[in-house]
Amino acid sequence: MIKVGIVGGTGYTGVELLRLLAQHPNVHLQAITSRTESGIAVSQMFPNLRGRVDVAFSEPTVENLSACDVVFFATPNGVAMKQVPELLDKGVKIIDLAADFRLKNPAEWQQWYGMAHASENLLAEAVYGLPEVNREAIKTARLVANPGCYPTAVQLGFLPLLKAGLIDSQTLIADAKSGVSGAGRKAEVPTLFAEAGDSFKAYGVAGHRHLPEIKQGLTSIYGQPVGLTFVPHLLPLIRGIHATLYARLTADVADIQALYEQTYQHEAFVDVMPAGSHPETRSVRGANMCRIAVHRPQGGDTVVILSVIDNLVKGAAGQAVQNMNIMFGLDESTGLSQIALLP
Amino acid sequence: MIKVGIVGGTGYTGVELLRLLAQHPNVHLQAITSRTESGIAVSQMFPNLRGRVDVAFSEPTVENLSACDVVFFATPNGVAMKQVPELLDKGVKIIDLAADFRLKNPAEWQQWYGMAHASENLLAEAVYGLPEVNREAIKTARLVANPGCYPTAVQLGFLPLLKAGLIDSQTLIADAKSGVSGAGRKAEVPTLFAEAGDSFKAYGVAGHRHLPEIKQGLTSIYGQPVGLTFVPHLLPLIRGIHATLYARLTADVADIQALYEQTYQHEAFVDVMPAGSHPETRSVRGANMCRIAVHRPQGGDTVVILSVIDNLVKGAAGQAVQNMNIMFGLDESTGLSQIALLP
Amino acid sequence: MIKVGIVGGTGYTGVELLRLLAQHPNVHLQAITSRTESGIAVSQMFPNLRGRVDVAFSEPTVENLSACDVVFFATPNGVAMKQVPELLDKGVKIIDLAADFRLKNPAEWQQWYGMAHASENLLAEAVYGLPEVNREAIKTARLVANPGCYPTAVQLGFLPLLKAGLIDSQTLIADAKSGVSGAGRKAEVPTLFAEAGDSFKAYGVAGHRHLPEIKQGLTSIYGQPVGLTFVPHLLPLIRGIHATLYARLTADVADIQALYEQTYQHEAFVDVMPAGSHPETRSVRGANMCRIAVHRPQGGDTVVILSVIDNLVKGAAGQAVQNMNIMFGLDESTGLSQIALLP
Amino acid sequence: MIKVGIVGGTGYTGVELLRLLAQHPNVHLQAITSRTESGIAVSQMFPNLRGRVDVAFSEPTVENLSACDVVFFATPNGVAMKQVPELLDKGVKIIDLAADFRLKNPAEWQQWYGMAHASENLLAEAVYGLPEVNREAIKTARLVANPGCYPTAVQLGFLPLLKAGLIDSQTLIADAKSGVSGAGRKAEVPTLFAEAGDSFKAYGVAGHRHLPEIKQGLTSIYGQPVGLTFVPHLLPLIRGIHATLYARLTADVADIQALYEQTYQHEAFVDVMPAGSHPETRSVRGANMCRIAVHRPQGGDTVVILSVIDNLVKGAAGQAVQNMNIMFGLDESTGLSQIALLP
Repeated sequence: MIKVGIVGGTGYTGVELLRLLAQHPNVHLQAITSRTESGIAVSQMFPNLRGRVDVAFSEPTVENLSACDVVFFATPNGVAMKQVPELLDKGVKIIDLAADFRLKNPAEWQQWYGMAHASENLLAEAVYGLPEVNREAIKTARLVANPGCYPTAVQLGFLPLLKAGLIDSQTLIADAKSGVSGAGRKAEVPTLFAEAGDSFKAYGVAGHRHLPEIKQGLTSIYGQPVGLTFVPHLLPLIRGIHATLYARLTADVADIQALYEQTYQHEAFVDVMPAGSHPETRSVRGANMCRIAVHRPQGGDTVVILSVIDNLVKGAAGQAVQNMNIMFGLDESTGLSQIALLP
Repeated sequence: MIKVGIVGGTGYTGVELLRLLAQHPNVHLQAITSRTESGIAVSQMFPNLRGRVDVAFSEPTVENLSACDVVFFATPNGVAMKQVPELLDKGVKIIDLAADFRLKNPAEWQQWYGMAHASENLLAEAVYGLPEVNREAIKTARLVANPGCYPTAVQLGFLPLLKAGLIDSQTLIADAKSGVSGAGRKAEVPTLFAEAGDSFKAYGVAGHRHLPEIKQGLTSIYGQPVGLTFVPHLLPLIRGIHATLYARLTADVADIQALYEQTYQHEAFVDVMPAGSHPETRSVRGANMCRIAVHRPQGGDTVVILSVIDNLVKGAAGQAVQNMNIMFGLDESTGLSQIALLP
Repeated sequence: MIKVGIVGGTGYTGVELLRLLAQHPNVHLQAITSRTESGIAVSQMFPNLRGRVDVAFSEPTVENLSACDVVFFATPNGVAMKQVPELLDKGVKIIDLAADFRLKNPAEWQQWYGMAHASENLLAEAVYGLPEVNREAIKTARLVANPGCYPTAVQLGFLPLLKAGLIDSQTLIADAKSGVSGAGRKAEVPTLFAEAGDSFKAYGVAGHRHLPEIKQGLTSIYGQPVGLTFVPHLLPLIRGIHATLYARLTADVADIQALYEQTYQHEAFVDVMPAGSHPETRSVRGANMCRIAVHRPQGGDTVVILSVIDNLVKGAAGQAVQNMNIMFGLDESTGLSQIALLP
Repeated sequence: MIKVGIVGGTGYTGVELLRLLAQHPNVHLQAITSRTESGIAVSQMFPNLRGRVDVAFSEPTVENLSACDVVFFATPNGVAMKQVPELLDKGVKIIDLAADFRLKNPAEWQQWYGMAHASENLLAEAVYGLPEVNREAIKTARLVANPGCYPTAVQLGFLPLLKAGLIDSQTLIADAKSGVSGAGRKAEVPTLFAEAGDSFKAYGVAGHRHLPEIKQGLTSIYGQPVGLTFVPHLLPLIRGIHATLYARLTADVADIQALYEQTYQHEAFVDVMPAGSHPETRSVRGANMCRIAVHRPQGGDTVVILSVIDNLVKGAAGQAVQNMNIMFGLDESTGLSQIALLP
C-alpha cells in the first residue's frame, strides 16, 4: 500500500482526491492536513464521504507528512514551494496540484503569481505532469507539477496538429469555458450562486495565469514558441471545462480525424470521438477522461477542436492520481475507472 | 458471472443501470434491448459509456432474454406485466423498475395507471423490493417490484417511528421534491430546460401515482391503514429527491435520534446523520444511499424527518442492483461502492 | 416627486429597489448610501442599471438623507434601529426592509437576532407593512417594517382560512423553499454556486428567524396564538419562494376556492389561481405578485395551499414600493406593473 | 393606437412579444393566433400574463389579421413566406421573427432551410431589421425580416472594426454561446432539463443556419465578402447570448475603444462598456440591449470583442418592437425601457 498524505484537503481538489483515493486499491490514506480544520472529521465537512473516509484533518507538520510515500499538495498557490524541499529531503514524493512548480521560469512565476519563488532550484527538476506528453519523465520524478485544468484541455486538444506541424503556430486561439468549481471553495462574491448562476461571461481576457502555462506547454510540444490568444469564460455549472480551439491549417492534411485517433490510440484517458461529434462536458463528469472531436467547417482552412474534461478530475485530482500511478509503477488506470455521471 | 439483460435501456434508469453494472464484478451484460434503437451502440446514445460498455441495443425478443439469469425491466409502465410471465417460465428472474408489480390490488393499479393489469396472478408473488423492509423475501424472490423513487425516500423516513407506534398514523404529511430526471427521458414540454429550469412548483397535488404505493408500503410497515397527504414538487436540478416528512407524536419518545440509529445500524445504504443535520441531495448524488436526519422543532409535538436519495440510484437502478445482489446471494454492497459526487 | 433615499444599496434588495424606483414615475432618487462603496457609481457595481441610474453611492450621513421624503433601509439587521430615530425626528418617513421593526416584543428580537434593541420605544408605532392586512395603518405610518420574504408568502397563504376560523390553528405547517438570493450578497461558502447549485436541502429546522415573525403575524390575523411548524429549504435557483402550507380543516367548508377568491378580489398583488392550479415561481419572477392555489387532496381534511412570490419583489423591494405608494397616497400599483419574465 | 396581430404566439418569442406589447403605450393587441390553441386564453398557457393580457388565441385567418396595422410572425420557419403576401396586399405591415425573409438569395434559403422559397419576389423588398445598420430603410418598409439572435450579437460586435476596414475580413471567428430558450418551446430530447442542464457543448460546427445570415450581414456592412468561422454552443441557462469574437488587426488602430464608443454613441440599445469590461449575459436579461466590450490581449494583433444580448429580447421580440417603433414613427425606445433583472 502506498502511504498517502494530502496537504490542504478542505477545497474541491481535496475532497475530489479523497473520493478517488478512497476507492483506490493500493492506497492507504495516512494523513490529511488543514491548519484551520485540524481535529475535524473529514466527513463532517464533506458528508458524501461519510462511512468511507474516517480520518480527521490534522496539523500540516513535517512529522505528520514525512511518513508518507507521496504527498499531494491541494493548497493555494505559494504554499507548496515553501514546504516541498523539506519533504523531498525526507524521501517523500510530491505531486503539487497548485501552480508552484508549473512554470520553468521563476521570473514568469513572479510576474503572474505576484510573489518571488521560494524554491527556484527545484523548478528544473519538477516534471510537468501531463502523462500524454511526459510519461517517461513522470515515472522517475520526485516532484510532479500537476497541470492546471485549462492547460490540460487546451494542450491535449492542440497536441496532434501542433506536433505534426500542420498549423500556423502563431495564431492559435483557445476559447475556453469552465464551471465554477474551478474557482475553488473560497467565499467570494463573484462565485455566489446568485452572481454566477443563470449568467455567462468571459473573464481575465487581458491575461489569465494559465496563459503562460499553456504557452510553455505548447512551445515544448511544438519545439518553438507559439502565439496564443486565450479567453476563459465562467459557465453556470459546477464541473466541466470545454475548450473550443481554433487553428489555421498551413499544410494539406489528408485526414485530421485519423491523425487524432492515431496520436491517442494507446491513451486510456483521451477519447477521440467519431468525426462530426460534439463532446458534452457531462460525458466526463466525475471521470478521468478528456474527450476530443475535430472539425473543419465548410472544408475551410480553419480547424476547430473541441476538448472537454472535468476540471476536478482530469483537470486536477484524477490526473494527480494518474501521475501517482505512473510514479509508483502501477497500472495507470488503477482506481480511475469511474464512469461519468449522465444525466 | 450473472448473465444480465436489460429491457428498455434508452431511458435514464437504463443508462444508470449500465453505469452500475459495468462496474459490477459479478455481472456479464448479456443483452440490452430497445425496439426503436436496435442495432445502435449503447455508447453512441450515452457517450459517458464509451470504452466501457460496448454492446448494441437489440430487439426485445424472448430469445434474446431467456439466456439471462436476471432481466431488469427499465420500460414504461405496462410493458413488463406483459412480458414477464414468459421469462419467468423460462427460469429467468425479474427485477421490474417500472410500477407494474408494485401495487397488490389490481383495481388500484387500474385506477392509477389507467389500464387493466395483464398479470394479476403474479401480483401476490411479486416481492416489493425495499430491502430494509423485505430482505428475507427478496432472497428467494423470482419477481421483484423495485420501489418508486418517492416511495423509497418516504418509507425509509417514516419507518422507525411508524414501526415503533409513536406517531399519529392518520395525519402523515410527505412534502417531497424531485429532480427532473424522475420524469424520464421523454420529449415533453414541461420538462424542457426553459420550462423546468430556474423555477419551482408543486404538481399532482390532487393525486400522484406514488401515493397508493407509499400508503400500501406504510400500511404494511405499520400493520394498519395510514392516512397520508403527499405533495410532490419539481426541483430545478437533475438528480435528487428530498422528502420532508411531518408526523405528530402520540407518545413520549425518549430519544428519536437513537431510535433511528438503532433501526438502521446494520443497513449499508441508510445513513442516519448526527442530530441537527440537514442532508443535502448532493451528498448522495450518484450513490446508492439514503441519508436521514430527524428533528423535533422547538421541542413540540411535530417531528420532522429529512430523507434524501438520488432518485436514479437508491430510487431506481442502485436499489435494483442491491436487490439483484440479495437475490443471487452476493454481498449486498457488491458493485455499489460509488461515492457521491461533491461538489 | 417623492425624494427617495436608500441606505445600504449594495445588496440584492438594494439593486432591486433601484430597478423598481428607476421606473417609478413619481420618484426622484435623492441619495443612495454605502459606507464601503462611497464614490462608486451604482451602475459600476450593477451593470444592468447602466444608462438608467446615474447616481453614485454616498456616505450614509444624516445630512445626505434628511432631505428625503422617505428613506428605505436595505441594510443588515440591526442598522436601521440605530439610525431611524434621528431621521424620523427630521420628518423623514422610513421603510425598513430589514427585520429591525418587525417583532413587537423586544425580548423576542433579542432572542432571535442576538442583540438588544436600540429603539424599543418605536416598536409599538412601527406598522407591519403587509398591505393586504394593514393597509389602513400603513397610510398614516411614519415607520413601516417591511415583511420578510417567507412571512409574506406564508401569511398571505394562510390568511383566508385562518380569518374564517376554518382550520386547526395549532397544527399549521409551512414547508417553504427559497432561492439563494434570499441569503443576500454576502461572500459565504454555503451560498457559493458550487455549494448551493445542483443540490437541495432544508436548513434552520430547529428555528429560523422568520418563525416568530410569521407566528406574530398569523396570531394577529387569527386573534389568538397559533401553533406553527416552519421548515425552510434552499432552492438551486436565484429568485423565488414557494410555500407549501398544510392545515387541518375543523369545519365543513362549502368552497375554499371561493373563499380565497373573495378574500383577495380587490387585491392588485394577490392572484388566486383557478382550482387545480400549481403556481410556478417563474410566474412571478421580477413581478410584485403573490400567486396562490388551494387544494384539498382526495377530499380529505387536510388542505394544501401553494403560495409563490419573488422574494426580492413581493418579498422585499416590490412590497416596499407598494408601501411607499400607500404612504404617499399614490395608486398602490404605481411603478409596479412589471410582468414576470417567462421563460 | 397601433392595432397589432401576432401569428403563432405559443412559443417563447410569442410570449415575450406579449410581455413587451402589454406594456407598450401605443399598442392595442388585436389578435393572437394559434391553430392548435384556438379558444384558449393566452394567460392560461403563460400565467405570468394573468391579469395583464386577457385575449384568447384565435384561428390564424386572414380575416382575423387583416384589420391589424402590423402583424408579427412568431412562427416556425416557412410559415410566414406563405401567408405574408396576402396580408401585404391588404395593407398590413409585417415583421417576421422567423428566418423566411432574412436571406436575399433564395437558393441559399433552400440550401439551409430545406424547402423552396414561397415568396421569392418579396426577398428584394424585405428589409433586414437590424436598426443600427438599416434604420432608414426600416422607416418605410412594409416587410421587415427581424434578425436572428446570434446574427444580432455577432454583427453588432464586428460592425465598427469591419466598417473601419481595420481587420482581416477573411479570418473572422465567432465563438457564440446561447441559452436554451433559443431552441424554442418544442418538445425535444436534447433540450430537456436533464439533457441540457449541468452540461455544455458545441453544436452545428459543420454549419448552422445563422452562418449564411451573419455572412450576408457582415458582407453588406463591409462591402465585400467576408470569411467567417462560426461555432455555436448551448449554455445551461435559459436566456442570453454571449458572442466572443476574434479578428486580426491589419492596420494600426489608435484607440479601438473610442472607435466603438463613437460608432454607437447615438444608439439607445447598444452599450459600449468601459475598457477592460466583461459583459455578463444577466446584465441584459429581459432588456432590449446589446452590451459590448473590446479587448486587445497583451497588445497583440488579435482583437477580442465580447457581445451579449438576451436572445428573446434584442435577439428577437425586443428588436421586433424596436422595428415596429421605427416603422410607425414612434420614438425608438417606446415600450422598451425594461431594466435587466439582476440578480
